[in-house]
Amino acid sequence: MKIHGTAIVSEKAKIGRGVEIGPYTIIHDNVKIGDNTVIGSHCEIGIPNHLSDGEELSIGKDSLIRSHSIFYEGSTFADGLATGHRVTVREKTIAGKNLQIGTLSDIQGHCIIGDFVRFHSNVHIGQKSKIGDFVWIFPYVVLTNDPHPPSNTLLGVTIGNYSVVATMSVILPGATIGENVLVGAHSSIKGNAESGCVYVGSPAKKICLASKIKLQDGSNEPAYPWVKHFHRGYPEEVTNEWRCM
Amino acid sequence: MKIHGTAIVSEKAKIGRGVEIGPYTIIHDNVKIGDNTVIGSHCEIGIPNHLSDGEELSIGKDSLIRSHSIFYEGSTFADGLATGHRVTVREKTIAGKNLQIGTLSDIQGHCIIGDFVRFHSNVHIGQKSKIGDFVWIFPYVVLTNDPHPPSNTLLGVTIGNYSVVATMSVILPGATIGENVLVGAHSSIKGNAESGCVYVGSPAKKICLASKIKLQDGSNEPAYPWVKHFHRGYPEEVTNEWRCM
Amino acid sequence: MKIHGTAIVSEKAKIGRGVEIGPYTIIHDNVKIGDNTVIGSHCEIGIPNHLSDGEELSIGKDSLIRSHSIFYEGSTFADGLATGHRVTVREKTIAGKNLQIGTLSDIQGHCIIGDFVRFHSNVHIGQKSKIGDFVWIFPYVVLTNDPHPPSNTLLGVTIGNYSVVATMSVILPGATIGENVLVGAHSSIKGNAESGCVYVGSPAKKICLASKIKLQDGSNEPAYPWVKHFHRGYPEEVTNEWRCM
Repeated sequence: MKIHGTAIVSEKAKIGRGVEIGPYTIIHDNVKIGDNTVIGSHCEIGIPNHLSDGEELSIGKDSLIRSHSIFYEGSTFADGLATGHRVTVREKTIAGKNLQIGTLSDIQGHCIIGDFVRFHSNVHIGQKSKIGDFVWIFPYVVLTNDPHPPSNTLLGVTIGNYSVVATMSVILPGATIGENVLVGAHSSIKGNAESGCVYVGSPAKKICLASKIKLQDGSNEPAYPWVKHFHRGYPEEVTNEWRCM
Repeated sequence: MKIHGTAIVSEKAKIGRGVEIGPYTIIHDNVKIGDNTVIGSHCEIGIPNHLSDGEELSIGKDSLIRSHSIFYEGSTFADGLATGHRVTVREKTIAGKNLQIGTLSDIQGHCIIGDFVRFHSNVHIGQKSKIGDFVWIFPYVVLTNDPHPPSNTLLGVTIGNYSVVATMSVILPGATIGENVLVGAHSSIKGNAESGCVYVGSPAKKICLASKIKLQDGSNEPAYPWVKHFHRGYPEEVTNEWRCM
Repeated sequence: MKIHGTAIVSEKAKIGRGVEIGPYTIIHDNVKIGDNTVIGSHCEIGIPNHLSDGEELSIGKDSLIRSHSIFYEGSTFADGLATGHRVTVREKTIAGKNLQIGTLSDIQGHCIIGDFVRFHSNVHIGQKSKIGDFVWIFPYVVLTNDPHPPSNTLLGVTIGNYSVVATMSVILPGATIGENVLVGAHSSIKGNAESGCVYVGSPAKKICLASKIKLQDGSNEPAYPWVKHFHRGYPEEVTNEWRCM
């Protein structure tokens, strides 16, 4: 363990082997941190909160939480979490392995996130969101949940495996996005988006099959499904499967 | 008082009874903090600034400022302020009681905010904004002010009581939004928005009376005015009045 | 030098004369800070990163980095940088003199920025962006780069001298914006935007010459080029030139 002298780490926190904790970081009581996880400076990890129902914050092993990040107690992350700086994660976020959360992103809690999901910078994941595996969400995207704000009716968004939501799009309350969908930049999605299709505009319309979009790298190959050509950051056992698909 | 040993608190600051101040937080000189207010970790409160004209930062009693937040000197908040994390509030913000400011929100100062206003996460309140009572502003909304940027002409936005601006909308310089207005998500508002109406689109058009929108909770009651069904977080003396409206 | 007792400053960092460093700020090894630069509290400056290829972070003299900001190693800023709070700047950002970066802005690195550029709050500058001199980017603008995300093809955005991108606009991958262009609020730009013109909408259309827009200060003078009437914050040798243009 390599805990900086200025870090304030509760004796009640369960800290794994080989964990590093940076300067001026606070680790609260109800926290479990997996082996070999690195936590940067100026973080606050495991903030107590009555909405957590006393559940602990569990961060899997081999994770990296970059500086100025804030996590509440009551969430669970499988192994290999990687965050940017100053992310905020509220209670009751249940996330699969190898999640990436970009700088400034705000996960509002009470949501379910699959394996190998990628949130780029400054995304806002509303409560009750259900996100599949291998989903990509790009900067300034908001997943909403209240059909007539403010109200007590929360209709979360559902996003299927391998789907992509491009920059500055809004997914409206209760929308259901299928698998392998591409939502273009600056769009808003209401209702259902069909698997394998491209949606663009505000309100978004179905434009074409995603497989019609060609790579702009000179190859003229289809750009979607993206797993055919984009493998950076995924483990070999995953990308090998993609090669056989 | 419960001031953490690592907090740096000016001897000139006026700190009320029962105030709590978290680790690694800085309280500058020209600050007055009301009784029983709680300030989280890693905050910077009362940053000196020549635009403040030497005015103090005054935070009312029973307030909660969550971690990593930044306030300049020269603003006044009535009792019961509650902020999320890493909010930024510049000088000459005058706000009524029980204001909520969500995580990452940025109040640019030189603005007036009524009682019981709710800013959700990541809103941007431009200078010269005038916001009534019981207003709701949802994530990634920007209130602008410069009709031909960059310039020295600042035309702030006005928003009437009980109005709601949904996610990722832009209110253009000098726009005036009446009372009980609903601005739909991903819209932009120019000019005047009539009281009691719904505006959607970019540029936004008047769609219908807000009272035409029905609750999606099975009741089929009107969703607006929202005070008829949404009371969470308001004191009883307020919601009792709403019941008689 | 005025380095706060709680600041953690590497002995390897090259710190100029008259530099001030605030409480709880961390300065890593591979950093050079120019004379008379002021760095606020809770910053992390010069984060090591293999993408920096070992290059140092160089901050010019007479700069001001406000609290909670984060810079990676491997970038270069000429004199007179001024940032808001909690900005994030990644490696291989090469910026000219007198750059302003507003609160919450996120510079993704691998980009080139001219002299006297102004980023207002919460802008997102994607990798491979090329930004000229005297450019203005307003809040919640995103410069993108991936034509079919996620992919390995990065087509950065180019923005010419004196151009202005208003609030919450998206500049799509590979777009080229000429000089003295005005992109209206809530727009999205694809392809080329002609010098001296106004573009509005999503997708944006050319509306008129920028010089057709009149100041709303009673003068009825053209609002663009903005250098004719807006001089605040620029040195006299620059504004004198503008008077002769």
